[in-house]
Amino acid sequence: MTKRAIRPADFPFNVMEFGPDKPLPLDGGGTLSPLTIAYETWGTLNPSRTNAVLVCHALTMDQFAAGPNPTNNKPAWWPTVIGPGKAIDTDRYFVICSNVLGGCMGTTGPASLSPDGAPWGLRFPVITIADMVRAQAMLLEALGVDTLFCAIGGSMGGMQVLQWTVDYPDKVFAAIPIATAARHSAQNIAFHEVGRQAVMADPDWREGNYLSQGVRPAKGLAVARMAAHITYVSEAALHRKFGRSLQAREAVSFGFDADFQIESFLRHQGASFVDRFDANSYLYITRAMDYFDLPAAHDGVLSNAFKKSNARFCVVTFSSDWHYPPSDGRTIVRALNAAGAEVSYVEIDSDKGHDAFLLNEPEMFKTLEGFMRAAANARGLA
Amino acid sequence: MTKRAIRPADFPFNVMEFGPDKPLPLDGGGTLSPLTIAYETWGTLNPSRTNAVLVCHALTMDQFAAGPNPTNNKPAWWPTVIGPGKAIDTDRYFVICSNVLGGCMGTTGPASLSPDGAPWGLRFPVITIADMVRAQAMLLEALGVDTLFCAIGGSMGGMQVLQWTVDYPDKVFAAIPIATAARHSAQNIAFHEVGRQAVMADPDWREGNYLSQGVRPAKGLAVARMAAHITYVSEAALHRKFGRSLQAREAVSFGFDADFQIESFLRHQGASFVDRFDANSYLYITRAMDYFDLPAAHDGVLSNAFKKSNARFCVVTFSSDWHYPPSDGRTIVRALNAAGAEVSYVEIDSDKGHDAFLLNEPEMFKTLEGFMRAAANARGLA
Repeated sequence: MTKRAIRPADFPFNVMEFGPDKPLPLDGGGTLSPLTIAYETWGTLNPSRTNAVLVCHALTMDQFAAGPNPTNNKPAWWPTVIGPGKAIDTDRYFVICSNVLGGCMGTTGPASLSPDGAPWGLRFPVITIADMVRAQAMLLEALGVDTLFCAIGGSMGGMQVLQWTVDYPDKVFAAIPIATAARHSAQNIAFHEVGRQAVMADPDWREGNYLSQGVRPAKGLAVARMAAHITYVSEAALHRKFGRSLQAREAVSFGFDADFQIESFLRHQGASFVDRFDANSYLYITRAMDYFDLPAAHDGVLSNAFKKSNARFCVVTFSSDWHYPPSDGRTIVRALNAAGAEVSYVEIDSDKGHDAFLLNEPEMFKTLEGFMRAAANARGLA
Repeated sequence: MTKRAIRPADFPFNVMEFGPDKPLPLDGGGTLSPLTIAYETWGTLNPSRTNAVLVCHALTMDQFAAGPNPTNNKPAWWPTVIGPGKAIDTDRYFVICSNVLGGCMGTTGPASLSPDGAPWGLRFPVITIADMVRAQAMLLEALGVDTLFCAIGGSMGGMQVLQWTVDYPDKVFAAIPIATAARHSAQNIAFHEVGRQAVMADPDWREGNYLSQGVRPAKGLAVARMAAHITYVSEAALHRKFGRSLQAREAVSFGFDADFQIESFLRHQGASFVDRFDANSYLYITRAMDYFDLPAAHDGVLSNAFKKSNARFCVVTFSSDWHYPPSDGRTIVRALNAAGAEVSYVEIDSDKGHDAFLLNEPEMFKTLEGFMRAAANARGLA
C-alpha cells in the first residue's frame, strides 16, 4: 500500500499500485497492467479481520463515500449511511470504498496514461462489472482483507454487490444490493446509448483522443448527463420540485433561454458534471453496465448464479424508481429464494425516484441499520 | 387556394398563401407575414359544409396523414384511421390535414425564406400551439370551411384539438384529443430541453444559421431524436421487441459498436430523422409544446378553459403511455366534466406506449368509429 500524489498533482490519494507481476485478467480477454486503484478507508480492521465492509459506488460517484473529495471539495456522497453511529458504523466496521476500474478519480481508466506515456483513450480495454469486482478483490487482498463482512451499493454499486456474491461466494457474509438489477433493461441500454452518441457526436471528442489534443467534449458529455439525470428522478419528484415554475422571470421569454426551472436545473447538472468526470470513462462505465447480465452468464437462469453463495441478502428498491424499478429487485429476490439464499426484501415507498438511495430516506436508514445489526450478531461482531 | 411547387422544387404541394393583407397574429407579439400553409385534403365538402374533419399532426409528422408523402415516399402516417370505411371515413367526410406553423413540410417555419431572402433561422418568432391553431383557422376560412364537424389528433395533435375547442368554442362539433395533456409536464420539458441542447451543442448548428452556410446539425438532431424516441415507447414494448438481443452477432463485441438491437434501432431512428426534419423546426415546435399550458391561460383552472365550448369530447389514453400518461387524460376529463361538457373517456389497455396511437390498436379504431358514428348522427350526417 502506497500513498502518493495523483492528478491534481498536489493532492494525495490513497492508491494501491499493481505492477507487471499482478496483471488484472479481463472478461474481454487479455489483462490490464499496470493497474492503480484509488480508495479510501474509514474505521479499523479488527484483529480477526471479520469486520470489513466494501462500499461499491454508482456510475458517476467515486471513493469519497464517507468523507469529502479533497480534489474538488465535493462532500461525501453517502454520509447518511456511513459514519459513526450510522448503519455502516465506522466505529465498528472497517469500511473500504474504491474508485471503479475504468473510472476517473485515481483508478486506472481511459484517462490514465498507458505504458506508452499517452492517455489510454479508446485503446483502453472494454471492461465489465466482473472486471471491476476482480480489481476490488485485488485491492482487498493487498489490504489484508480476506473476507467481507458486508458488500453494499446502490445502482451500479448494487450490480457489483451481486457480482461479488456470485464470483466470491465464500467471501461475502452479507450483501445489500440497492436500487439495482441483475441485468440492464433495453430502456436503460437505450438511455446509455443516447449518452454515448451525444459524447461521440461532439467534435471535441476527437475519436477519444481529446486529452492528447488539449480539448474536451464538454457539450456532448453535458447532454449525456442531462438525459441520464432525467432517469434518476421520478416524474412526481420533478413535478414537486419544479413543476412548470419559471426561472427568475414572470412570464415565458418566447425564446430559447432556460425559461423553466427544470431547464435551468438540467443545464446546471450537465455543466457541473463535465468539470468532474471524464467523457471516455462515461463511455466505458455505461458500457460495463449495459453488458451486465447475470442470468446470461449462467445458462439464462438467474438463480444458478447464486447457487454457491453463502451470503445473506437485503434487497432494497424504491417504489418510484423507474430506472431500476421494484420489479427488477423482485426478480433478484425470486432467484435468491430459488437458490435457497437467506433474503429480506424491502420496497421503500418514496416519490424521489432512483436517486432516493442517495437522499434522506429514513425508512432506508432503518432498514439498513436493522439488517446490519442482525448480520453483525450472526457474525459474532455484536 | 393555389397549388405550386415547393422544396424540393420539382414537387407539387397543396399550399395556401397569405400575403401582407392577411398577417398571422402571434401570442408572442407581432404578426407573421407572408405565410404559406401546406395541406392535404381527402373526400368532399358537402353542400351544407358540415362534414369537415381537421386532423392535427404530432411533433415530427406532416400533412400526409392519409396519403404518401410525395417528397420522400414515406407512407401515410394514419392510414388505419383515415380512409374509405375507416373511422375518419373519406367517403363521408372532408378531411383536412395541414403542416403546422413552424414545421418543415411546406408551411412557413424557420427553414423558410424570410422576406429578406435568407432563411428565417432563429429570427423566426417563437410560436405557440394557439398560433398553430390560428394559422389552421385561416386555412379553413380560405377553404370555405366555417365549422369543423370534428377535430382529431394525438400527442401534440391533441393539444391543438384542445386549443381549438378553447379558442373557437362554437366552431367544433366533436373533439378527439388522444394521448395528450392540457399542459406539458416537467419531465416532458426536461426531455425536450435535452433534445434542444443536443441540437445546439452541434457546431454545425451555427447558432441556427446552418442553412445559409450549407451545413446541418445532423449529429445533434439525431441524438435529440434518439432521446425523444425512448419516450415514445414503453419499457414493455422495448423489452418485447428488443430485450437484450444482440445485433447480427453471437456475443458482445467488447467495443462501442451497436452490439444490442436496441442500439442499432435507435441509431437508425436518429439517422433517418435528420433526412426528413429541420433542426430549427425541432427547436421551435418542442418549445411550443413546452409552453402549452391551458390552465395557466385560464386563471390556473383548466375547466375555465372549456366553459364556452360546445363540443362533445372523446378523450383517449393508453395504459402504458408514460410520455402523456392516462393521468393527463383524466385531468382533461375531470375539467370537461366540471365545465359541463359532454365527454367520453377511454383508456386503452396497450403495452405499446405513447406511439400506440399511430399503431395497430383495434380498440382505438373501434372507439373512434363508435364516437364518430354517434357524433355524425347527432350532427345529422348519418
